Amino acid sequence: MTPTIKVISNHRSIRKFTEQALSVEQREAIMGAAQAAPSSSFLQASAVIRITDPELRAKVMALCGKQPYIGSAPEFWVFCADFNRHLQWVPEAQTGFAEQLLIGAIDTALMGQNAMTAAESLGLGAVFIGAVRNNPHELSALLQLPKGVIPLFGLCMGYPAQDPETKPRLPASLMFCDNAYPAEFDSATMQAYDEVVQDYYRTRTGGRKEMTWTGQIGDTLSKEARPFILDFLKEQGFCLR
Amino acid sequence: MTPTIKVISNHRSIRKFTEQALSVEQREAIMGAAQAAPSSSFLQASAVIRITDPELRAKVMALCGKQPYIGSAPEFWVFCADFNRHLQWVPEAQTGFAEQLLIGAIDTALMGQNAMTAAESLGLGAVFIGAVRNNPHELSALLQLPKGVIPLFGLCMGYPAQDPETKPRLPASLMFCDNAYPAEFDSATMQAYDEVVQDYYRTRTGGRKEMTWTGQIGDTLSKEARPFILDFLKEQGFCLR
Repeated sequence: MTPTIKVISNHRSIRKFTEQALSVEQREAIMGAAQAAPSSSFLQASAVIRITDPELRAKVMALCGKQPYIGSAPEFWVFCADFNRHLQWVPEAQTGFAEQLLIGAIDTALMGQNAMTAAESLGLGAVFIGAVRNNPHELSALLQLPKGVIPLFGLCMGYPAQDPETKPRLPASLMFCDNAYPAEFDSATMQAYDEVVQDYYRTRTGGRKEMTWTGQIGDTLSKEARPFILDFLKEQGFCLR
Repeated sequence: MTPTIKVISNHRSIRKFTEQALSVEQREAIMGAAQAAPSSSFLQASAVIRITDPELRAKVMALCGKQPYIGSAPEFWVFCADFNRHLQWVPEAQTGFAEQLLIGAIDTALMGQNAMTAAESLGLGAVFIGAVRNNPHELSALLQLPKGVIPLFGLCMGYPAQDPETKPRLPASLMFCDNAYPAEFDSATMQAYDEVVQDYYRTRTGGRKEMTWTGQIGDTLSKEARPFILDFLKEQGFCLR
């Protein structure tokens, strides 16, 4: 196991931070690591907005599920898919394709994960914030995101003030397979995993939460998933064709 | 700079590999690193198909722009967004939301980048293959991908048999900004970057290619971007609402 794999494998989302700021050198190293990610057709279809203004940070937090660490983290960055830059330089560019949504989402996520890993290698903790998609119209107005730009996820970073356990992932046999998608999954493996997750929550919450994985995804998927997103994507010029 | 940031910053896509296979330990370390990535609402909405059958590999290669390294790389994995597993365990799950396409694409890319970084830390080289989206219907039939599953990108891995330069990225000032998307980008910075990219291609190709970045994105974006993807996504149960 390499030091890098050790850093990656030790990932836990950190949601409590000390007040210590990141140094300029740390910030630039994380930015450089993010940009070193591969880019489909070298389009570099991403933009990152760093929210430094405390008043703006409070407004963003209010739009993103009021998660307090958005307000308190030393750094909060909003990762966006960005084809606006291309339209500025190549006004005749053909856009609006669902494929470009995939390119923007995938490539920006590659950058985000590099930023996460770089931060963790520096002894920092971090958490991604999907809730930047809670109120995308309002958030885009606030951050002055033009057409061609959509907020995908946020990233809080800072020195950790908590030390949670790593969360047990699906057994590899349920996520990886050879040559074809499996006709069915092994239900005994699944049940064993449900118990592992239940134990994890029981231990972590001192018995207050007892949730299996299938129970949890059942809850999550019983609700609508941000049903306004498709219209927002179309208004911003994605997924039109 | 940490050893991990050094690994990340040294990324170049590797498209020529020696014949040396990965060890089981290496493969398992890369799988573990991939799974350690964060997962939105802990949905773990991804599946990875490892293509080991040489005949199948040849067929997949034919569908993916005939890129020879898909055939020759010691490892070739297809990363998919996967909500089928959830539908098997929670048949009443609400799916079809564009938001779930974003979750699947972003989270699977986080996994892919962890796999890439882990592989590179082991001295391996790798390249992502967007061309798995060239013929998604045919590829899905070949890999028996059911509804709820879409191939997002491939990953070739092996010991590098080439040592290319790192590719110069957009200046950070054109990718990162504070508090708002910039009203306009600095054109002098852009022009300087165009020259850097032109030099990179000139040096790399011995003068045969002289392409600026704006020239390159102009070429790429003058064409349709996989216009069949939106229909494919809908057929697989994504982006319907």
